[in-house]
Amino acid sequence: MPSLQPLLDARYGAGAPALRGDAGPVLETLLRHRSVRAFTAEPVGDDVLLQLVAAAQSASSSSNLQAWSVVAVRDPERRARLAAFAGGQRHVVQAPLFLAWISDLSRLSRIAGSLGQPCGGLDYVESLLLGTIDAALAAQNAAAAAESMGLGVVYIGALRNEPEKVAAELALPPRAFAVFGMCVGRPDPERPAAVKPRLPQEGVLHRETYGVGAEPAALASYEREMTGFYASQGMRAEGWIRHTAARIRDAASLTGRDRLKPALHALGFKLD
Amino acid sequence: MPSLQPLLDARYGAGAPALRGDAGPVLETLLRHRSVRAFTAEPVGDDVLLQLVAAAQSASSSSNLQAWSVVAVRDPERRARLAAFAGGQRHVVQAPLFLAWISDLSRLSRIAGSLGQPCGGLDYVESLLLGTIDAALAAQNAAAAAESMGLGVVYIGALRNEPEKVAAELALPPRAFAVFGMCVGRPDPERPAAVKPRLPQEGVLHRETYGVGAEPAALASYEREMTGFYASQGMRAEGWIRHTAARIRDAASLTGRDRLKPALHALGFKLD
Repeated sequence: MPSLQPLLDARYGAGAPALRGDAGPVLETLLRHRSVRAFTAEPVGDDVLLQLVAAAQSASSSSNLQAWSVVAVRDPERRARLAAFAGGQRHVVQAPLFLAWISDLSRLSRIAGSLGQPCGGLDYVESLLLGTIDAALAAQNAAAAAESMGLGVVYIGALRNEPEKVAAELALPPRAFAVFGMCVGRPDPERPAAVKPRLPQEGVLHRETYGVGAEPAALASYEREMTGFYASQGMRAEGWIRHTAARIRDAASLTGRDRLKPALHALGFKLD
Repeated sequence: MPSLQPLLDARYGAGAPALRGDAGPVLETLLRHRSVRAFTAEPVGDDVLLQLVAAAQSASSSSNLQAWSVVAVRDPERRARLAAFAGGQRHVVQAPLFLAWISDLSRLSRIAGSLGQPCGGLDYVESLLLGTIDAALAAQNAAAAAESMGLGVVYIGALRNEPEKVAAELALPPRAFAVFGMCVGRPDPERPAAVKPRLPQEGVLHRETYGVGAEPAALASYEREMTGFYASQGMRAEGWIRHTAARIRDAASLTGRDRLKPALHALGFKLD
C-alpha cells in the first residue's frame, strides 16, 4: 500500500497536512484524481458503462427518491453538438463516452401521475437542489469507479451555458435538467494530466463553527502554490486569486449562466 | 477480489444487470454502501477527519473555485441542537462526528473584496448550484473514504428544514448555506444496516437521448423489489411508488423545505 504522505504532498504541496500511515486503495484512487482532457480513441465498453451506473446508483439518494438520470452519449455527431453548446471543449468530441447527468424530477412527476396525484412539491427550489445533489453524488461515484479502472474523467459544468439547447439535444422531458456532463475515456499517455493543488485544509475545514481566522494565511500559501503550478503547466500568470475574482465579478463573468433561472423556468422548474 | 455479480445482486435484486468478472476494491466499497444510522461510541480521530477532508478536496471543483466548506462538529450539545433542527434524528446525536457540508460563496466574496472588486456573479442561481455541486462532489468522496476505513455514514438532508437556524448554530457568514449534513462513526455491529435496492438501470440510464419506454417495467420490477425489502426491514407496507408520490405531493410534503427560497434570500443568496 502506498504511503499517505506523498499523496497528500502531491495534492497540497507545501500546505499538506502531516499524516503517517498508508493509504488504502480507495483513498489512493480519490487522492490521485486529476481531470483528464486528452483521451485515446479506445472505446469504453458497455460492461464498463453498466459498472459506472451501478456505482452511481449506489450513492446515497435523498429519501431514496432517486431524482436523477444519466444519458450516455457515444454518437460522435451528438458529442460534437454538445461540445459546441459547452464552449467548444474539444475533449467532449474526443472522449469516446460522454455522460450527461440529469437533475430529474420528471420521473417523479410521472410516478405521481400514474396514481392520479398532484406533484406540487416539485415546484420548489428545494426539489431542484434535491435532484442536483442526487445527481452529483451519483456522478462522483461513477468518477471514482472510472478512475479505479484506469479511465480518466473530466466534469463539464459548461453544459449549463445552454440548458435549453442541451435539453433539446438529449430530448429531456419537462422538469429534467442536465446539471453537468462528464467525459470518460482512456487517458492519452502522451499528454498526462497533473494533480491540481487545493487550498490548505485550514481554508475549508472549520471546527464546531465557521471561522475565518486561518483564511488569509491559507489563501496566501495557496496563491504561492498555484503560481508554481501554473508555471509548471505553462498556464496563466495572473494567479489563482485574480483568476477566481474575475470568474465571479459580474453577470458577464458567468459565460451565459446568469440566464440559468429563466432557462430552468423554460425547462419546467418553477423554483418557488 | 470479490465477484461483481453478488454485489450487483445485493444492490438491485431481481433487476440486477448481468456482468462477469471481479470488482476491484473501489467498486466494491461503492457498491456495498449502505446508510448507517446506528453507531458505537468509538470516537473518530482527527487523523481520520483530515483524510476525509483530503479525499473531499480531491474531488473535482468547478473552475477550481472550491466553493464549499465543511464544519466538523463533535460537541454533543451542538449535535443535539442540530439534530433538533433536522427533525430529531437520533443518529445525529449518537454519531461522534457530524460534518455539515456548506455551499460556500462567502470565501469567494472575501477574495473579491480583498482586491476591491465586485462579486455580482455570486448573485445568480448558477452560483448557488455551483457551490452545491462542489459541496456534493466533495462530500461523496469523503463518504467513500470513510466507508473504505470501515466507518459508516448517513447523509442528513433534513439540515435544509431549518437553514437559518443551522446557519446561526454554525456561525455561517452571509452567502454560506449548509446543503446537508453527514453523520460519521463506527457502525454498531448489533444493528447492521442493509443495502437498499435501487431502480433497475433501465429506469435511470438513457442511451443517446432520454426515453421512457423502459420505465414502466423498471418501476414495476422495483416496486416488487422494494415491497420485499420493506417487509424484510419491518417497514411501511405502502410500497415505494406510493411513498414517493406522497413525498412530492405538495408544499406540505416538504417538511418545511418549501421555505428554502426565502431562507436562502435571508442567508445572502439573491438567486437572480
